[in-house]
Amino acid sequence: MADLDAGEVPDRFWDEGTSPVSRALLASAVRCFARRGFHATTTRDITAGVGLSPGALYVHFASKEELLFEIARTGHERALDALRSRTDDGDSARYVRRLVAGLVTWHARHHTIARVCQYELGALEPAHHAAVLALRQQFSAVLRSAVARGVEEGVFDVPDVNRAVRAILSLGIDLVRWYRLDGADPPEALGEFYADLALRMIGTRPPPGPG
Amino acid sequence: MADLDAGEVPDRFWDEGTSPVSRALLASAVRCFARRGFHATTTRDITAGVGLSPGALYVHFASKEELLFEIARTGHERALDALRSRTDDGDSARYVRRLVAGLVTWHARHHTIARVCQYELGALEPAHHAAVLALRQQFSAVLRSAVARGVEEGVFDVPDVNRAVRAILSLGIDLVRWYRLDGADPPEALGEFYADLALRMIGTRPPPGPG
Repeated sequence: MADLDAGEVPDRFWDEGTSPVSRALLASAVRCFARRGFHATTTRDITAGVGLSPGALYVHFASKEELLFEIARTGHERALDALRSRTDDGDSARYVRRLVAGLVTWHARHHTIARVCQYELGALEPAHHAAVLALRQQFSAVLRSAVARGVEEGVFDVPDVNRAVRAILSLGIDLVRWYRLDGADPPEALGEFYADLALRMIGTRPPPGPG
Repeated sequence: MADLDAGEVPDRFWDEGTSPVSRALLASAVRCFARRGFHATTTRDITAGVGLSPGALYVHFASKEELLFEIARTGHERALDALRSRTDDGDSARYVRRLVAGLVTWHARHHTIARVCQYELGALEPAHHAAVLALRQQFSAVLRSAVARGVEEGVFDVPDVNRAVRAILSLGIDLVRWYRLDGADPPEALGEFYADLALRMIGTRPPPGPG
């Protein structure tokens, strides 16, 4: 992953009240973890990225693992917020379309932090891992209940809701492996394209009217 | 990724003529790279996995990077063979269905080595990276030309062949992030399910007759 583009974490990404030095350390850790993985990153790599001495990290975080947890927790919460902010006007196809467009656009725009959120969870301590898994379950539940509603209404044709939802999530998540912000697809365009594919996967087409 | 299951590399996976010690070192390297990543793995980790001293690695491989290249090259060649072995009886929908079932089944069955093939390519030296990319292009070309043929025949409805093929490949590839052989879906069942989703994505349904 030597050729990461500038898909960096904006300063406003982190919780309110996070100090400027902590924000800088979190952003540096995201870059390091995305480039070389959690295990190959030293605390010295992270502090050097912001011009501090290695010991400075422990003024702000208990450990390298706590940095990873803060990244994973915040990343998952932001993705969940992005999903929950999508409008549901009662039309299930239009709602699922907006949810998928939202999840794909979010993962494309934030692909660097999303890569850490997807590929480095195995390095979390058990309690932290459980907390992140709970957020992931909330995330997939939003999409699953929207798909299940359309199935109950008879407007979707889905032989297996859980497997279909997992497949739609895979579409949104796998792009963090290859997505580059300087590529041919802006995040929103990719979101629209994948949203239409997702509707096809659940046996429907986008209804007329505002997307 | 601490909880890898027994999705190990079978001894027959490697090229004919690969010595037993080299096969053991390759399998150990797959386990180490999948668990902690290439950069965090030492040559000592790899040799310890087969009960050899660290220096023994260099009798068989020039470097840790050469081991990674051998893994990535072989993995991609085997996946390409699996795709090319699928029957094309001239029916484009049935052919695409077989290709997708083949690629998903292969990635599920070989998910540990496939994880290394997908997530560690950034650590390859430029010439090795280029060689693996060439194999990847051959791989996607098989699926792309099958989809393009169905579009030309008027039996598929695909607004953008390249983006649709990339999305289908994402479905097959993302499962290496979460797949476990002891889970609910045997590789073949997942392959069949995703093959049907892929046909929906390209605007068709499986034709009657043998799959």
